[in-house]
Amino acid sequence: MALPEPSPSSPPGPGELFASEIREQPAAITRLLGQRRLYSSVGRRLAQLRPSVVRLVGHGSSDNAASYGMYAFGLLPGWTAMRDSMSLAIYYGASVDFERSAVVALSQSGRTPDVVEYVVTARRHGALTIAITNTPDSELGDAADLVLPLEAGPEEAVAATKTYTNQLAALALLAGCASPKGARVAASLEQVAAQMAGVIPGLAVAVNGPASAFGFVGRMFVIGRGLEFATAREVALKLKETCRIAAEPFTATDLVHGPIAALDPLFPVWTIASRDHALPAVLDASARARAAGSAIVASGNAAVEVESAAYTLAVPEAPLPLLAPFLSVLPGQLFAGALARVKGLDPDRPDGLSKVTLAR
Amino acid sequence: MALPEPSPSSPPGPGELFASEIREQPAAITRLLGQRRLYSSVGRRLAQLRPSVVRLVGHGSSDNAASYGMYAFGLLPGWTAMRDSMSLAIYYGASVDFERSAVVALSQSGRTPDVVEYVVTARRHGALTIAITNTPDSELGDAADLVLPLEAGPEEAVAATKTYTNQLAALALLAGCASPKGARVAASLEQVAAQMAGVIPGLAVAVNGPASAFGFVGRMFVIGRGLEFATAREVALKLKETCRIAAEPFTATDLVHGPIAALDPLFPVWTIASRDHALPAVLDASARARAAGSAIVASGNAAVEVESAAYTLAVPEAPLPLLAPFLSVLPGQLFAGALARVKGLDPDRPDGLSKVTLAR
Repeated sequence: MALPEPSPSSPPGPGELFASEIREQPAAITRLLGQRRLYSSVGRRLAQLRPSVVRLVGHGSSDNAASYGMYAFGLLPGWTAMRDSMSLAIYYGASVDFERSAVVALSQSGRTPDVVEYVVTARRHGALTIAITNTPDSELGDAADLVLPLEAGPEEAVAATKTYTNQLAALALLAGCASPKGARVAASLEQVAAQMAGVIPGLAVAVNGPASAFGFVGRMFVIGRGLEFATAREVALKLKETCRIAAEPFTATDLVHGPIAALDPLFPVWTIASRDHALPAVLDASARARAAGSAIVASGNAAVEVESAAYTLAVPEAPLPLLAPFLSVLPGQLFAGALARVKGLDPDRPDGLSKVTLAR
Repeated sequence: MALPEPSPSSPPGPGELFASEIREQPAAITRLLGQRRLYSSVGRRLAQLRPSVVRLVGHGSSDNAASYGMYAFGLLPGWTAMRDSMSLAIYYGASVDFERSAVVALSQSGRTPDVVEYVVTARRHGALTIAITNTPDSELGDAADLVLPLEAGPEEAVAATKTYTNQLAALALLAGCASPKGARVAASLEQVAAQMAGVIPGLAVAVNGPASAFGFVGRMFVIGRGLEFATAREVALKLKETCRIAAEPFTATDLVHGPIAALDPLFPVWTIASRDHALPAVLDASARARAAGSAIVASGNAAVEVESAAYTLAVPEAPLPLLAPFLSVLPGQLFAGALARVKGLDPDRPDGLSKVTLAR
C-alpha cells in the first residue's frame, strides 16, 4: 500500500528542513565536485600568484569555515592564511598592503555587506579576490575577480548546515588545487561524502540519548584543537542558534587557560576528539573538565579515547586527516536538531534570525 | 591617630589582590614606558625587516591582547598582523614560510609550552622572534631573538589584569616605534595612564549597581567591534574566570549572524561602545539584543549612546582612538571583582586555575 504523498502545499514541520539539509550534505559535496575544473583553474591562478598571505573573510558559519581554511592552505600548499579583520580595511581605513594577497570571501547569500565592501576595497588595492558563494549572481559575485560556486543548492533552514560543509569542501578543494594534491583531495572528498551518507542514519538515532538528557542545559563549552577548532566553533554556533544554549567554543588549550574555572556539574562540555597530533591536548583538557564536574559528550573519530564520557558519538576516520571535520561536525548538527525538538524549538526558524543577515 | 599596619603575615582577603592589581594598572604602564628606548630599538629593527606578516601568539589574556595587536600593527606601521595558529607549526609540522615574518610571542610567565615551542620553530625557520614577557629570564626569553620586558611587576591574582593592559601598552608602543609615531604613542600612553588612575575610584563604586543585580546571572554575551573586540574577549574571560558566568565575546556583527537567537530576558549583554567608525555596528547590535529581551550594560566612551541600557558605565575618550581599550576594559574588570564578591567567590584564586598554566 502506497503512503499518501504529502501535499506540496503543506508546510514542513518544525526542524524538517534542518534535518533534510543535514542529510543532503553528501549529495551537496558531490555536486560541488562537479565544478572541479573551475576550482582547478582558480587554484592554478593562485599558485602562480604564490600569495604572501591568504585573507579569509566571512561572518557566522562562513567565519567558522574560514578557521578551517587556515589549515587547508597551511597544510596543502603550505601558505599562510588568516581570518582577516574586515574592520581595519572598511571601518578604519587602514593602509593594508594587499599586494600579493589573495582574498577568499565566504558568503552563502553573496549579500553580506561587510564582506562585499571588504572585497571591493581589497581588489582596488591589488589583491586577487575570490568569492565562494551559493549565489554567484550576487553583489559579492560581481565584486570579486573570480567566483567559485558553492553548489549547495537552496538552503531553506535558517541555521546553516550543507552550506557550511560545502564551504569546507570548497576550501579543501581550492587549497588542494593550489598544490600538487588537487586530485587526491577531490577523490578523498568523494570518499568522505560516502562515509557521511553511511553514518548519518545511525548518528541521528544515537544523538537522542544526550538530547533527551540535555533539555534543561543552559551553558556548554565545545572544545577541539587545530583542524577541529572550526568544528567546535560550528557546533557551538548551532547550539546557540537552534537550542538557545550559551555554548562557547575553545581550543582545548585555551579552555585550560581560564574558562575552566566556570565549569560545574550543570555545565557540560562537548569534546571533538580526532586522531591527529593535537589529540593529546584535547584529551587532557577533557579530563580536566571532567575533574571540574562537567558531564562530557565525546565526539570525533577518537571519541572512544575520551575518558569518563557520559555519551560517546564516534565517527569513522576520514581518508585524509584534513577531512576529519566533515565527519566530526555531524554529531553536533544532528544533536542540535534533536535537542531543539526536545525543547519545542524550531531550528528551521530560530527567533530573531533571518536567512540573509544584512546587518553591519 | 595612626591606623595599625596590617601584619605582614595576614593573608589578603578574597579579591584583594585582584582589586589592588586593577588599581595598579596606571603605575604599571608608566613603569613600562621607562623601557621606551629598548622598545624603540626593537621597533627600528622591525621596521628594517618590514615583515610581510606579524604573527602574534599567546593563550588566554595574552591571546586577547593579540587581538589588539592586529589593530596596533594595522593602524600604526600599516602592517598585516594575525593571531597565528600554533597547532600548524608545532603539532602538524606544516611547512610554514617564516621568512620575512616577525613573531611577537606573549606570555606573562614566559613558560607557556606551546608558545615556547612555536617560537623555537619559527626562529629556526627564519622568523625574527620577539618575546614580550613579565619574566625575561624564562624559557621564552631564552628562546626568542629579542626580549621586551612587560614590567607589570609580580601579578599575584590568578586572573590577569595589569599584565593584560601592559601587554596592550607593549604592543601599542612596539607598533608605534616601528612607525614614525613612537613618541606620540608613548606620550599618549602616559596620558591614558593618568586617565585610568582618575577614573578607577568612581567606576569601582558605579559597578556595584549592576553587580548587586547580577548575582544569579549564568549567561552573558559581551560585544565590541574592531579595536574593542579585544576588550570584549578580555571582559568575557574575566567573567568566566572570576564569576563562573558563561560569557562569550562576539564582534557586534557576528552576534547578529546567529548567536542573537539564544538571547532572552535572563541573558544580559555587555556592550563596549567606543567612538570610532565601528560604533554604528555596535549600537545596531545592541539595539537588536535589547529587542530580544536582554538587559544591556553599556560601557566604553560612547556608552551614553547605547539606547535603553539598564546600566551605563562610561569612561573618558583616550587621546588616540587606538588607546580606547585601556579605559574601556576597566568597567569590566571592576565589575568582575564586584560580582565575584556578591557571589562569595574569590577572584584571586578561582577554582581549577593556577597562575602558570603548563597544559598543552
